[in-house]
This record gives sequence, structure tokens and C-alpha cells, in this order.
Amino acid sequence: MQIAQVRGTVVSTQKDQSLTGVKFLLVQFIDEEGQLLPKYEVAADSVGAGVNEWVLVSRGSAARKLSGSEHRPLDALVVGIIDTVNLDGLSLYNKREQY
Amino acid sequence: MQIAQVRGTVVSTQKDQSLTGVKFLLVQFIDEEGQLLPKYEVAADSVGAGVNEWVLVSRGSAARKLSGSEHRPLDALVVGIIDTVNLDGLSLYNKREQY
Amino acid sequence: MQIAQVRGTVVSTQKDQSLTGVKFLLVQFIDEEGQLLPKYEVAADSVGAGVNEWVLVSRGSAARKLSGSEHRPLDALVVGIIDTVNLDGLSLYNKREQY
Amino acid sequence: MQIAQVRGTVVSTQKDQSLTGVKFLLVQFIDEEGQLLPKYEVAADSVGAGVNEWVLVSRGSAARKLSGSEHRPLDALVVGIIDTVNLDGLSLYNKREQY
Amino acid sequence: MQIAQVRGTVVSTQKDQSLTGVKFLLVQFIDEEGQLLPKYEVAADSVGAGVNEWVLVSRGSAARKLSGSEHRPLDALVVGIIDTVNLDGLSLYNKREQY
Repeated sequence: MQIAQVRGTVVSTQKDQSLTGVKFLLVQFIDEEGQLLPKYEVAADSVGAGVNEWVLVSRGSAARKLSGSEHRPLDALVVGIIDTVNLDGLSLYNKREQY
Repeated sequence: MQIAQVRGTVVSTQKDQSLTGVKFLLVQFIDEEGQLLPKYEVAADSVGAGVNEWVLVSRGSAARKLSGSEHRPLDALVVGIIDTVNLDGLSLYNKREQY
Repeated sequence: MQIAQVRGTVVSTQKDQSLTGVKFLLVQFIDEEGQLLPKYEVAADSVGAGVNEWVLVSRGSAARKLSGSEHRPLDALVVGIIDTVNLDGLSLYNKREQY
Repeated sequence: MQIAQVRGTVVSTQKDQSLTGVKFLLVQFIDEEGQLLPKYEVAADSVGAGVNEWVLVSRGSAARKLSGSEHRPLDALVVGIIDTVNLDGLSLYNKREQY
Repeated sequence: MQIAQVRGTVVSTQKDQSLTGVKFLLVQFIDEEGQLLPKYEVAADSVGAGVNEWVLVSRGSAARKLSGSEHRPLDALVVGIIDTVNLDGLSLYNKREQY
């Protein structure tokens, strides 16, 4: 999985009908030093993530492993909201300290 | 998924017979600031997307999830026409304002 | 899929036995302006493509979707010979004009 | 697989319920000269790897091949702790010499 | 598939038990001009490849297509030892001329 920050949303009305009701988040990837990378995914949301939160994003066939998504043409999924990232024994990110 | 703009079409007569009737769009990827990237896919179209429209593109096995495509050797699919992209609370793209 | 030009062939005698009889083409990728990229695949040929022709290449599990290839360890396949590529209403490539 | 070094951990409480009990390691990739690359994965741990150890990381659908993980939305997995890496007949890494 | 040169081996004792007996080769990728790229895979060996040989490497789910490997968390496999690579009608590599 990659670490990403929720930056926004994408809305599509004219889409494959299997995608009805799926919420699309624009999530921008974050590097191992905590900085935003020039790389993103439009990912389906499975956890109710909000703007600015750090999340875990799975790509590829993993994005269709949730019940009900087996036949959706998805290749990216937000699988968790991140509480903490620790690197070399130090805190890189702590959700509680962001607000 | 990635955000992309429909730039054109690719025609192939001599192809695997499972691909008969599939329309191939040349879609160029767009970055998180709305600019065209030097990166594209030739994607099957499932939604009737037109030139210049912004679309959502799924890659990998997701491209074969539509009914009838299970056995086609596809690895990229246009899954939706984008209405709006919002980033940090601002509008990055609105289909209505393009015409 | 990516657009690529057939540049040559790769021969391997000592290989997994499921690959017996498979022809391997060295195909070099082409960018959205029609230029060769420093990127290639060795792809199985399903359409009888010849040197210099432009072809469509599928990667990943798509490469095993042809009848008889389900159990071959392939990850790239030439799925079609390109006739035309049109971009922004102009012709980027036309097979008839190449010879 | 890629060679990576365990750098830390990621904790997520609000996640897809299938991921309950999965430990997420932040592993940073290492190049063929033994140097850290600016590239990482958050990978599920299947072998009890510790910080600083070199590990083998599988990506994609391989990450769901362990018993019990078939339906988890995982795309990266630590599959082994590395003892030695030999390159051109020389030792690039030997776990015993690290401590 | 990609063309790669066998550079060495990786040994892991503490690994997923399904990987017992699998030999891991460190293979470095080669570009379309025959030069080593700063890119490698640790790939399972299915053909008895030796150091310095040029091989074909499949990635992704293709790496689990060999009988017995269906449930192993592998994402890279050496599928053949290369005899010759021909590009634009010229020989880029001929195994017989290497020794």
C-alpha cells in the first residue's frame, strides 16, 4: 500500500452502472519523509475518509476485494485511515496532532 | 483510477478476434494540477466518451470486469466521464464550463 | 494498451515448456507524439506482426486471455496491428503511408 | 520481488474489517548496490520482520496468496527475511554482519 | 517480459513456508541497446539459469503460473534463458558468443 492524503473528490454521472453509489476520492501520494509526491490516484472510499486525512491506498486487483466490489472496474481503494506512521523510532505522522 | 483527457482514436483491423467491435480511445493522463502528462493509454471505451472530455481510466484486470469483456486481452478501460474534480475545496475541472 | 513498434525478436530454447511454440517479439513503446521511448517489452505475438509495424500491446494478466495461454507465464501480448492513430483530429500514423 | 529494509510501522484503527490483526510495516526499497531508494511500500508482515532487517517484498495479487488473506485488500507483503545477497560472486549483504 | 542478466542470488531462511525450495535469483534489467539498467527483480528460477546469462523475466500473476506455484506469493519469475536477441535485423546478443 501507499500512504496518501485525501485532497478532494471526483464526480462522474455517466459511468459504468456497476459504479453507482461509489464515492471517488482524489488521494495524493506521500513519500517516506512525509512530503506530497506529484502522483495521485482516484480511489474508491471504503472507510469514510475526509479531506486532509492520511490514508492507506491499495492498487490493482486488491481494490475489488471488498464484498460487493468483485465485478466493479476499480483499480484503487482507500483501505484505512492512518493513525500513526513511525519511522526509525520517530513519529512521522500522528493524526491527533493534526487538528 | 487516473484522470485522463480523450485525445483521439486507434484503429486496428488485424487483431485478436475477441476485440471485434471494441472502440479504442487514446487517452492522455492529467496530473493533480490539471495539466497533461507525457503518459497515455489506449483504452477500451465503455461509456461513449468524446474527444476532449475528461474521463476516469482503470488499468490492469479491472479493464475486463464489464460483462462480455472477461476473456478480452484488455488492460485499460474508460469507466466514466468526469463531471467535476474538486481539490482542496476548489474546482479543478467542471465539464459544463468547458464548452 | 500501449502503442509500440516491432523492433526484433528474442529466441529462447531453454524455457518453461508451456512456452513452446510461442513467438517472442521485441516491441519498443511509442509516445503520444509518435516517437520511440526508451522502454520495451518482449511480448508474445498473437497476430503475425512484422518488423517495423505499429502494434497494440497489453500487459499483465491480459496477456494470458487468449485460448491456450491461460497457464503460460506471459505478461505481455501483441493484441493487434495498428492501421491508424488519430490525435486531435490529425493523423499521427497510417500504416498505408509507411511503405 | 524487491529487496527492502524495514524502516517502521503504520497503524490504522479505522480500516476495512478484513484487515483486523494485520501488521503493517513501512519498508523502503534498496537498489542493486545496497543503497536505499526513495521508494517504499506499506506491506503486511507474514514473517515477524524487525526494524532494520532486509526483507523480500512481493507486490500485487501475490500479497493475498497466504492462507487467510485471499479476501483482504492487500497489494504488498513481506515474504521473507533476507540472510544474504550475493552479486557477481561478492557479498552485498549478510545479516550476521549487521549486528 | 523484460530482458535481464543474472547477477547473483538471494538467500532467505525465515520465509513463508510455501517458498521452501524456491531459488531466488537477482536479475538486473537490460535496455533495448543491451546495457544494464538501474532496475532489478529478485525472481524465482524455473529454468536453471546461471550467473551472467541473459534471461526472460515475467512479472505479476504470471510468476505463479507454473505447476506447484499457484499459491506461492511470487511476483517475478525467470521463464527462459535467452539464446539470441535480434534488433532491426542485427544481433544484439548471442549466447554462444559470450563464452
